[in-house]
Amino acid sequence: MTATVADILRLATPGVQGLSPYQPGKPIEELEREYGVTGAIKLASNENPLGPSPRALAAARAALADIHRYPDGNGFVLKSALARKHGIAPECITLGNGSNDILEFLARAFVLPENEVIFSEHAFAVYPIVTRAVDAKAVVIPAKNWGHDLAAMRAAVNARTRLVFIANPNNPTGTWLKADELEAFIGAMPAHVLVAVDEAYFEYVEEREYPNTIGWTAKYPNLVTARTFSKAYGLAGLRVGYGVSSPAVADVLNRVRQPFNVNSVALAAATAALEDTAHVARAVQTNRDGMGQLIEAFTELGLEYIPSAGNFICVDFKRPAAAMYEALLRQGVIVRPIANYGMPNHLRITVGLPEENRRFIEALRKIVRDR
Amino acid sequence: MTATVADILRLATPGVQGLSPYQPGKPIEELEREYGVTGAIKLASNENPLGPSPRALAAARAALADIHRYPDGNGFVLKSALARKHGIAPECITLGNGSNDILEFLARAFVLPENEVIFSEHAFAVYPIVTRAVDAKAVVIPAKNWGHDLAAMRAAVNARTRLVFIANPNNPTGTWLKADELEAFIGAMPAHVLVAVDEAYFEYVEEREYPNTIGWTAKYPNLVTARTFSKAYGLAGLRVGYGVSSPAVADVLNRVRQPFNVNSVALAAATAALEDTAHVARAVQTNRDGMGQLIEAFTELGLEYIPSAGNFICVDFKRPAAAMYEALLRQGVIVRPIANYGMPNHLRITVGLPEENRRFIEALRKIVRDR
Repeated sequence: MTATVADILRLATPGVQGLSPYQPGKPIEELEREYGVTGAIKLASNENPLGPSPRALAAARAALADIHRYPDGNGFVLKSALARKHGIAPECITLGNGSNDILEFLARAFVLPENEVIFSEHAFAVYPIVTRAVDAKAVVIPAKNWGHDLAAMRAAVNARTRLVFIANPNNPTGTWLKADELEAFIGAMPAHVLVAVDEAYFEYVEEREYPNTIGWTAKYPNLVTARTFSKAYGLAGLRVGYGVSSPAVADVLNRVRQPFNVNSVALAAATAALEDTAHVARAVQTNRDGMGQLIEAFTELGLEYIPSAGNFICVDFKRPAAAMYEALLRQGVIVRPIANYGMPNHLRITVGLPEENRRFIEALRKIVRDR
Repeated sequence: MTATVADILRLATPGVQGLSPYQPGKPIEELEREYGVTGAIKLASNENPLGPSPRALAAARAALADIHRYPDGNGFVLKSALARKHGIAPECITLGNGSNDILEFLARAFVLPENEVIFSEHAFAVYPIVTRAVDAKAVVIPAKNWGHDLAAMRAAVNARTRLVFIANPNNPTGTWLKADELEAFIGAMPAHVLVAVDEAYFEYVEEREYPNTIGWTAKYPNLVTARTFSKAYGLAGLRVGYGVSSPAVADVLNRVRQPFNVNSVALAAATAALEDTAHVARAVQTNRDGMGQLIEAFTELGLEYIPSAGNFICVDFKRPAAAMYEALLRQGVIVRPIANYGMPNHLRITVGLPEENRRFIEALRKIVRDR
């Protein structure tokens, strides 16, 4: 019996047949292998360049002592800590293997092939992937000033709509929505539509009118807020995120959750990380300073950028940026090309440590002046 | 706007509406909290009582230094090590957040509501869960001597069948299939049926006629072997498993895999664990000795048991075992009730360290003689 790729693919579900996997940022080791450079820096995946809290690291190390045991599938300790922090019941929480897990649960638990899922142009790549995987229709609303056009998104809702994804701030553009406009949008949704607000970069945002949607959970039973420990908390490698919603929605999401989806080290590290608010404050300060450094350089070089509330910023080269990406790689600097986000002329730069930002700026200056 | 659980549940997919989550073994901390006991022992989740290889632990500790970085989404290093070990191409491998991930991918990537999924009575609880989640029909074949009835399973295949799950050895019963009978079954499957052989307990099996189905991958493009680092490798808390199949099937499975489904600590620890074959040999020896200890005690107490090729054994109390489970809990011994596997009179005991087995046997003896 032999079977070709085509034979096997024909057995796959229609959604999966049309799926192309997410393209992650290039790992440093891969760049060094492929380009023969050493000491490369990575400003490509919106990671926290300070690393995690030392308390989180200590908790992770301690958790290794019991690593032959299955994790607590209910995540009792982490959920208790999150409930205390946010002033909510543990029943409102769904733990995820990264917040990616939560986004996927929403599609798998609520969306059928006959449904529509609404999200914005230039929004996070995982929204179309999870929509496609369940063979539902993706309704992509053109962006307004690189951000969400809430009026147009609202107008696109119909009887088939089951889920709306909103990234606030948005990745990769860094745009953000104000509390009043976002709450008006959520309040206008019919009861058959779930709204998922992806707040992966929540901790970095300093704008006064930026909302904390977790405070709205009690008011809007169809609202789900997704948060992660991969960004400001510096735990991307451990994979832990969570959803906050009404207990009714959390009950459904927890049904599609694998019993041990979050590993023990992640549970312990995340619980400890929550307590170290000073570390998060340092991350935010580092980001603010680094963002200033990058903006100053872009201004000096006459490069247009999209103002960002996150720990990353998109810069516009006004021509296909693939060559610029390659030129930076050859100088040992990994940033993120975002042609797959419909932004072929932009690159997305993660804000790094002062010295990393300097190295990126130097490389950029050299390339821009040479071209 | 208010919504009841019923309102929200109505929005969920039909498969998810009928889903009840997997019931994990009780964590030690939970028992101690609920029963006010201390120093409890857990023989409930088929974990390796020796813990992981010290080399795996050292690699895990080292990986924590980069934990603010995303994992390598391609798992390059672990896949290379697995490919070397098994003599296969890395393209045959799909990495999972535990082998549970692989079992779920199979259902999500290949099974539609109009399909049927075949598995045995008393087989692993995750098979019905992933089948139900995609709203497909579960075809449960009555067991033969507590094991798989391959002839009946083969007879149940029809045009709607898309997937067959086989656990070898089976959890929770410990029964196993010989190479010739299993290969005859796989060879008889039509091209539209995938066969997933779940070999979570592979490393423990010492029977001469027990097959290594990874060697069959090149011959049977519809075969998927699932393995895990949660059992003999002692890494249950880190969540890492894998599927081995034709590259065509692996390509499809990798499409539904989340880009960072396996965390960095797990990738590093699993790679190191693979190299420590002496540690696995120690685990197998410990299991063989402990199994002897348990069987001797069951025989002495006149208790019937199902001979097992795994690191666990089912003992038959000839009456509902819930009271026995509770009595053991009160003595600080956690074992696994398996009424949800259609075996209300049995308990499943994980083989522990000599001292843990002694404590269990003592508690058991006391309860059996008192009743």
